[in-house]
Amino acid sequence: MSIWDKVIFELIFWFSMFVKNVFRRRVESLFSKLSVEGVEATVLVNPYNGFYFTGFDCAMVTILVRALEPVVIVPRLEYLRAKRETVYGEVIGVNSYEVELGPYERVFIGKTWDLVKNILNEYGVRGKIGVDRANLKVDEYNKLVKTLGEKLVDITKDVASLRSIKSEEELKAIKKAIEIAEEAMRKASNCLEKGVTEEEVAIEIDKIFRLNHADRSFNTIVAFGENAAYPHAKPGKRELKEGDLVIVDLGARIYGYCSDMTRTFIYGRASEKQSRIFNAVLEAQRAAIESIKSGEKAANVDRAAREVLKKHGLTAYFNHGLGHGVGLEIHEQPTLNPASKDTLLSGMVVTVEPGVYLESYGGVRIEDMVLVMEGSCEILTSFERVFF
Amino acid sequence: MSIWDKVIFELIFWFSMFVKNVFRRRVESLFSKLSVEGVEATVLVNPYNGFYFTGFDCAMVTILVRALEPVVIVPRLEYLRAKRETVYGEVIGVNSYEVELGPYERVFIGKTWDLVKNILNEYGVRGKIGVDRANLKVDEYNKLVKTLGEKLVDITKDVASLRSIKSEEELKAIKKAIEIAEEAMRKASNCLEKGVTEEEVAIEIDKIFRLNHADRSFNTIVAFGENAAYPHAKPGKRELKEGDLVIVDLGARIYGYCSDMTRTFIYGRASEKQSRIFNAVLEAQRAAIESIKSGEKAANVDRAAREVLKKHGLTAYFNHGLGHGVGLEIHEQPTLNPASKDTLLSGMVVTVEPGVYLESYGGVRIEDMVLVMEGSCEILTSFERVFF
Repeated sequence: MSIWDKVIFELIFWFSMFVKNVFRRRVESLFSKLSVEGVEATVLVNPYNGFYFTGFDCAMVTILVRALEPVVIVPRLEYLRAKRETVYGEVIGVNSYEVELGPYERVFIGKTWDLVKNILNEYGVRGKIGVDRANLKVDEYNKLVKTLGEKLVDITKDVASLRSIKSEEELKAIKKAIEIAEEAMRKASNCLEKGVTEEEVAIEIDKIFRLNHADRSFNTIVAFGENAAYPHAKPGKRELKEGDLVIVDLGARIYGYCSDMTRTFIYGRASEKQSRIFNAVLEAQRAAIESIKSGEKAANVDRAAREVLKKHGLTAYFNHGLGHGVGLEIHEQPTLNPASKDTLLSGMVVTVEPGVYLESYGGVRIEDMVLVMEGSCEILTSFERVFF
Repeated sequence: MSIWDKVIFELIFWFSMFVKNVFRRRVESLFSKLSVEGVEATVLVNPYNGFYFTGFDCAMVTILVRALEPVVIVPRLEYLRAKRETVYGEVIGVNSYEVELGPYERVFIGKTWDLVKNILNEYGVRGKIGVDRANLKVDEYNKLVKTLGEKLVDITKDVASLRSIKSEEELKAIKKAIEIAEEAMRKASNCLEKGVTEEEVAIEIDKIFRLNHADRSFNTIVAFGENAAYPHAKPGKRELKEGDLVIVDLGARIYGYCSDMTRTFIYGRASEKQSRIFNAVLEAQRAAIESIKSGEKAANVDRAAREVLKKHGLTAYFNHGLGHGVGLEIHEQPTLNPASKDTLLSGMVVTVEPGVYLESYGGVRIEDMVLVMEGSCEILTSFERVFF
């Protein structure tokens, strides 16, 4: 081994140690912050929870035992990919029926929950076992209870809270996802020519994502004219016409992390009514963003937007909540709506997306991503908001 | 009203009556075939089940009461779209918190399960209530039980069985989805030039889908060389090189229905080893398809493929099941694997997709969609299989 090979080897080794450390600290952090006492291990079924602790995002079940490396249990057909992509943790495949195995495979033949039980026994786990229960189907949960007994406790909220506060590394990934989303939004806005269809604009958005090694973080929305009255419109054959309102809602996913943003364009000259609605939504968004700071109640931020719309007589046409947390999942903690019990905290990344929708007419929505900080917030999305 | 207006009006009226009838007959069919006696109503939470009975695919909860029109319960923000797109059934929105409503909205303020209870009471339902329980998260199911009491019975399998037998109308939609998938596969095969990346091929596939008013029915797989060893590979930056095996697995969704097909190409001249693996997989697929007919056990069809691979010493490298039903969902009843208890029946549409995967080397998978018939089957996908 030459001196340079040795240096490169050392660099790779230390880099991978650093990355592993990021994940190891997350596991430690979870156990130190659990709201229930005496939890010795966790069984996580949400793949995004799995990714958060192991770096692999198709994990079927992730077992965390205090102070040990995670165990990632995947269906047999994902075994090789999991082995390559898991950053922190060891991988075991599972196959429910008897079958001949390849020489490189570490696969358990039997039921997943039996494998989970074996691993927990092997690790000497006797205490409570935390489960992200909100993600489990009722039949699966019943099987899990049957296999592991009554030691299960729900830790869905603990994991969600931990994930809601973004670290520096996570913010870097989110900012990259935003950069790609903004490139796609630029492309979309440049496509708005008479006769173009919603689908054609969506094609260009897909393309920008792929060329940046990203994918959609949700189904892209491109809605022209009266279609903009549907908050979850699907891109269709509708052609762009003079005077149309245009809603584009898109997000990229890269390194596992999502972005989410919406702009409303006008093709041609805005009518007085269109301008009035647009300005009301923009004013509502600004009021909401101004109210965001660590310690603020999410419901109050929602109310700030709703009060502006009320002043304009438009509250009845704002038919959804103000926003949501974004990270590994496109919708995660916290929730910003009138019924939310969440409190905003430093390091949370949330959307602020008031909208007004009129049947057979169209709609306006403006959505930005915001980082909650002490005393204020930082708007992460920088794409211009006004086209009127 | 002129005579022509009247004729057109009549035509539209009768056409919509015909379409409604398709859905009405499905509801009748479900109640007549239920495996439990005394079920008076059903509460369906799987959106695909909702679509099957109402024509709308974002239904949050679909209530069916024997001999009545369905009730589709959607989140408030989907109300307008649901009202426009629901073919059979009436739509009610639901919003968990107090809010001012628009003049055109029919929205219940409160909890979804309370609304469900009110509707069932209003319709005088006193008997058992069928639920597609397998789709319910444990916490939601517990709330449902708390609200509706102990009258719930699981009808997941009844609905899945009904949906597994495709009608003429459904087959037309599936054939259209296949036509689009084959156009995309043609485009993908024409893209395979030296230096092209997996992502670039995926872009062209996305584009063909969108231009045909379709979307992906699952995440497209384009895998070059050693990446083809991962059955669920994601398209990445990998460039195409001489001698690469290439797996392309794609499907379109149109009118709600999915297609699903895989081809394995070779870029350049196939090595002796590549040809051997390819021919074994093709032979396995042919044997399996030849064994498909109404009344055949799905496990036997899987075995037909596995026996061919065994002859070639390759069973250990076939790391998944042989296939699955396709329809509104990309994976639905029946399941074709060694542990399956399903029996193939006329009108089922299934995939047949044996594969062989070698670590750090690559893989071969060939997947077609097949319609089960009396005494034989029809291969619905016609794209050529051999590129060696």
